[in-house]
Amino acid sequence: MPEISNRGRQMPASPIRKLTPFADKAKREGKKVYHLNIGQPDIETPAVMLDAVKNIDFKVWAYTPSEGTLTYRTKLTEYYNKLGYQIEPSDILVTMGGSEAITIAMQTCMNDGDEVIIPEPFYANYNGFACMSNVVVKPILSQIENGFALPAISEFEKLIGPKTKAIIICNPNNPTGYLYSRSELEALRELCLKYNLFLFSDEAYREFCYDGKEFISPMHLEGLEEHVIVLDTVSKRYSACGARLGCLITKNKEVIAAGLKFAQARLSPGLVEQIAATAAVDTPDSYFEAVNKEYTLRRDTLVNRLNNIPGVTCPNPGGAFYVVARFPIDDADKFCQWMLEEFNYDNQTVMMAPATGFYSTKGVGTNQVRLAYVLNKEDLEAAMKCLEVALEVYPGRI
Amino acid sequence: MPEISNRGRQMPASPIRKLTPFADKAKREGKKVYHLNIGQPDIETPAVMLDAVKNIDFKVWAYTPSEGTLTYRTKLTEYYNKLGYQIEPSDILVTMGGSEAITIAMQTCMNDGDEVIIPEPFYANYNGFACMSNVVVKPILSQIENGFALPAISEFEKLIGPKTKAIIICNPNNPTGYLYSRSELEALRELCLKYNLFLFSDEAYREFCYDGKEFISPMHLEGLEEHVIVLDTVSKRYSACGARLGCLITKNKEVIAAGLKFAQARLSPGLVEQIAATAAVDTPDSYFEAVNKEYTLRRDTLVNRLNNIPGVTCPNPGGAFYVVARFPIDDADKFCQWMLEEFNYDNQTVMMAPATGFYSTKGVGTNQVRLAYVLNKEDLEAAMKCLEVALEVYPGRI
Repeated sequence: MPEISNRGRQMPASPIRKLTPFADKAKREGKKVYHLNIGQPDIETPAVMLDAVKNIDFKVWAYTPSEGTLTYRTKLTEYYNKLGYQIEPSDILVTMGGSEAITIAMQTCMNDGDEVIIPEPFYANYNGFACMSNVVVKPILSQIENGFALPAISEFEKLIGPKTKAIIICNPNNPTGYLYSRSELEALRELCLKYNLFLFSDEAYREFCYDGKEFISPMHLEGLEEHVIVLDTVSKRYSACGARLGCLITKNKEVIAAGLKFAQARLSPGLVEQIAATAAVDTPDSYFEAVNKEYTLRRDTLVNRLNNIPGVTCPNPGGAFYVVARFPIDDADKFCQWMLEEFNYDNQTVMMAPATGFYSTKGVGTNQVRLAYVLNKEDLEAAMKCLEVALEVYPGRI
Repeated sequence: MPEISNRGRQMPASPIRKLTPFADKAKREGKKVYHLNIGQPDIETPAVMLDAVKNIDFKVWAYTPSEGTLTYRTKLTEYYNKLGYQIEPSDILVTMGGSEAITIAMQTCMNDGDEVIIPEPFYANYNGFACMSNVVVKPILSQIENGFALPAISEFEKLIGPKTKAIIICNPNNPTGYLYSRSELEALRELCLKYNLFLFSDEAYREFCYDGKEFISPMHLEGLEEHVIVLDTVSKRYSACGARLGCLITKNKEVIAAGLKFAQARLSPGLVEQIAATAAVDTPDSYFEAVNKEYTLRRDTLVNRLNNIPGVTCPNPGGAFYVVARFPIDDADKFCQWMLEEFNYDNQTVMMAPATGFYSTKGVGTNQVRLAYVLNKEDLEAAMKCLEVALEVYPGRI
């Protein structure tokens, strides 16, 4: 039997799915499981987007240009230029989800063995994309004590060496929800200019900023045009995770030209999705206002409940729909599994993602958990009641 | 300005698109251009598939499992088991187009620097996927004189070394249309068993076999279960190229388990496409019969017309919807560009793909051209008239 590859062995399994067998078992045993482990929102996709799918009128489900249709890219510039990005359709490569945008960015910009610095905890799939691209992830620790703010620039500089090629930020952050400030981004600009680094800006959660806080992108900063690559997706913006449509945006023409060759190899992004996402740009503001209000309520509910549980620390993040909380426990992996296997309160339990999967440094974040507030307030309250009781009776409580 | 990667520089541009600027210019000048360069059929997508899109009834466009929905994978086994593949849903990974299936197969099975043997001319994007995967393509020449039949096994053995890990066949073949016989596949089975190689079977054109010829897959051969990886797509089967939905099939559980990790990194294939493709499995036989009849007519038209042009040689292939023909010319790249830039007949011209893009060996196939018979008979006749005249007056005729 031929052997699989080293890369096939080394590819990390998804940390948010490794407890799924235990959740499935809990459900088979009749337990109600509140899913706070995944970023699949229950928010409805805008009607204008779904209607565009229902109203397709082509007879041949044909390829589109590899870079995406001009119609869609033109409409996207309308969306981005309202945000002040000042881009043209030719600055955009339409991709199959944000995932493909990240892979293309890594493969276009980084050689085998090159290093990318990422503040941790970070979106776990960056590890997979790095593995696929032979890129080395250099994590830099952000701290729960200051709400997972950007680590000091001096800490970045300690990691920068001849192989350093890029920095990835996810803003607002998955998993911490932290929203980077203008001054943090300006500090990153100086760093990227000083060391001639690419700055990959994963903005999947751009729409989700709370408390009137402003979203700042590296696209808003002057002098960084050749360095910034925005990685985006319609998944969270329109609650359309299953559409698998994203894009890569940069003013760097060399990156666009090389990225296009990766896009050409896989021929085309989806046609129906591009039609739907073109329509989605006209989603009324009222949709986003309602969603924002709903998430603010959920965040407030979750963060308040968590901080009222003895021994629990949870920062109040400015964006996205995740928090990373610290629990008074021995080991988050054990605790999350125990919640599914051993625990129930009124025949209910909660599935959460142990934060260890979001740290690259071993042994860090072992008492931290990521919770996604993708359920309504009532379910969140019920889930928090379960958690409260669980933390009282968990044998590994410390 | 930070530099792009070596891989970004080395990625091959799509050979079927490099003449597009010339075609665009010809169109701006008012010429009618017959597109025989690309595999985008004009055949209508089955109504049952498009209706499924129009009838979606979900409110949240959500992720599906990374391996594809159980509903779709179960329905797919119905399709494949009718062909005698004897597979289960757990033998399938649903992918974003056949392209992703090929990338996952390469990355799961092959280490950096490992070699894959591919009979040439071959589907040009294998080069791109190999570049993305740090895999080395070792081409093995097939000959127009015998219709691009499988090269002798002794020729394969000359190429096999310690780094050889897999063979790719595309059956029926793109670009040659050649349909491999049972005895050719049996010879490949012995070879793969002898040298412990994976056999990647790209079956994108499975539905398109003519003259009553039988399609044989390595899945039909005994003893090769751990070696065979089928790479498939709905693109050509249902004329749904823009759906970007494919799959990887294997009985090798280690490959499925490792491949799933690559699938998990990008989270999910498209939801709407899986709904549509589930419905498409119930496409009536009459659809395929009509399509097959239409393509047979087109192939006969094209092959007859080509062979009646003085100096042109074109084999009569058993499948797919391409031919590779030899022209009495100095250089196919120059000729195809000249057709767009300099030539017109009655204000019409033809866009074709120079075959050099499908050869990995330099200097081979320089007088060969790939033609896709994706237009109706009338347009094909008109295109052939253009070509006939063009070959008379082309300055580089030899």
